[in-house]
Amino acid sequence: MSHFEPRDRSQIRRIPDRGHYDAATIYDIIDEALICHVGFSIDDRPFVLPMIHARDEDRLLFHGAKASRMLKHFQGGLDICVTITLLDGLVLARSVFHHSMNYRSVVIFGTGSIIEDPGEKLRGLELLTEHLIPGRWQDARLPSEKEMNATTLVSMRIEEASAKIRSGPPGDDEEDYELQIWAGVLPIRQQILDPVAGDRISEGIPVPDYVRSFVRMR
Amino acid sequence: MSHFEPRDRSQIRRIPDRGHYDAATIYDIIDEALICHVGFSIDDRPFVLPMIHARDEDRLLFHGAKASRMLKHFQGGLDICVTITLLDGLVLARSVFHHSMNYRSVVIFGTGSIIEDPGEKLRGLELLTEHLIPGRWQDARLPSEKEMNATTLVSMRIEEASAKIRSGPPGDDEEDYELQIWAGVLPIRQQILDPVAGDRISEGIPVPDYVRSFVRMR
Repeated sequence: MSHFEPRDRSQIRRIPDRGHYDAATIYDIIDEALICHVGFSIDDRPFVLPMIHARDEDRLLFHGAKASRMLKHFQGGLDICVTITLLDGLVLARSVFHHSMNYRSVVIFGTGSIIEDPGEKLRGLELLTEHLIPGRWQDARLPSEKEMNATTLVSMRIEEASAKIRSGPPGDDEEDYELQIWAGVLPIRQQILDPVAGDRISEGIPVPDYVRSFVRMR
Repeated sequence: MSHFEPRDRSQIRRIPDRGHYDAATIYDIIDEALICHVGFSIDDRPFVLPMIHARDEDRLLFHGAKASRMLKHFQGGLDICVTITLLDGLVLARSVFHHSMNYRSVVIFGTGSIIEDPGEKLRGLELLTEHLIPGRWQDARLPSEKEMNATTLVSMRIEEASAKIRSGPPGDDEEDYELQIWAGVLPIRQQILDPVAGDRISEGIPVPDYVRSFVRMR
């Protein structure tokens, strides 16, 4: 799919020219983000939880403990809304009214199902690990059968999705440009600092190249 | 309130020793975050949207355009779940199974109401602006009556809340510590870069001190 048809839930109504429905834009935001916020309703009460995700073509993958309350609910084809927000800056306009953020966000709707097939499940865990930090799957100790059984993998096809993006300088009302007020953007980025080795690292194990060179930003 | 009683929705069940219910811990996470994710249900379908927030004692404030679909729903005392996640690091264990994130998150439940009183509304907008960047309210052009009328302010009392925090190095199964695999943490922080002046800034207006010195991190 190269484009998601905007429907009632996914149509951007507030400032519609910030809306994007092409898969490339939506997928780039999904792929850059380290976490997402997963929303679902139980008895018409909303829950939102942060989760690690990965994308497999037009599907999102999540994993968690077998005993997780939330993941159990996904088994029944529960409606899910997944929202991802990348913050790019604070936008300081001359007027309080036009203050804003620069951001790239996606809102995705679909239903979840639990992956039982061991091969598919292992591949899903590989995608989740590689989404976190490419190169890790080849290096780490892979899941045992017991660990596989203790893990639930959820797959959700992206049924509806839209992105909303704001970038650039503040926009002020014409008459405000002459005010003696500074206006501009404070750019924000997610910075990855130098790796900190864990406890009891065996002597002579260097920091792997894929860790040393890990960056995750535009 | 100095402590939120864990109830069915807010009790941390997965890895309960990561759960915190004291207001100081919860408020610190709320106050540090620049955005939150607001979840609500309409006809039992979940929606999650990123929003700017501020805290006023035991209340969260949000604002938006008068015409916003979402904010209209809050008028009816809709159940809301607000989730905030601060990402502190990638946790690379020797086993794929024990990979994790360092994070500080809060999940908050309550119901929203719309603030109509002009004085309360102005004060709410001041809190929202000062939450974004302290010092800005004194400097910027304050809202006109027309702008006030075009803005909806929502207040939500925190009825239930819990924080979940993971920090520190990876934990591996005892027998995995001897593996020849590097393990550790890649710390992550939100970095604020140098301010970028907007278009048509009048000559001689310096970058204000509160902008130049703005940082937002532990």
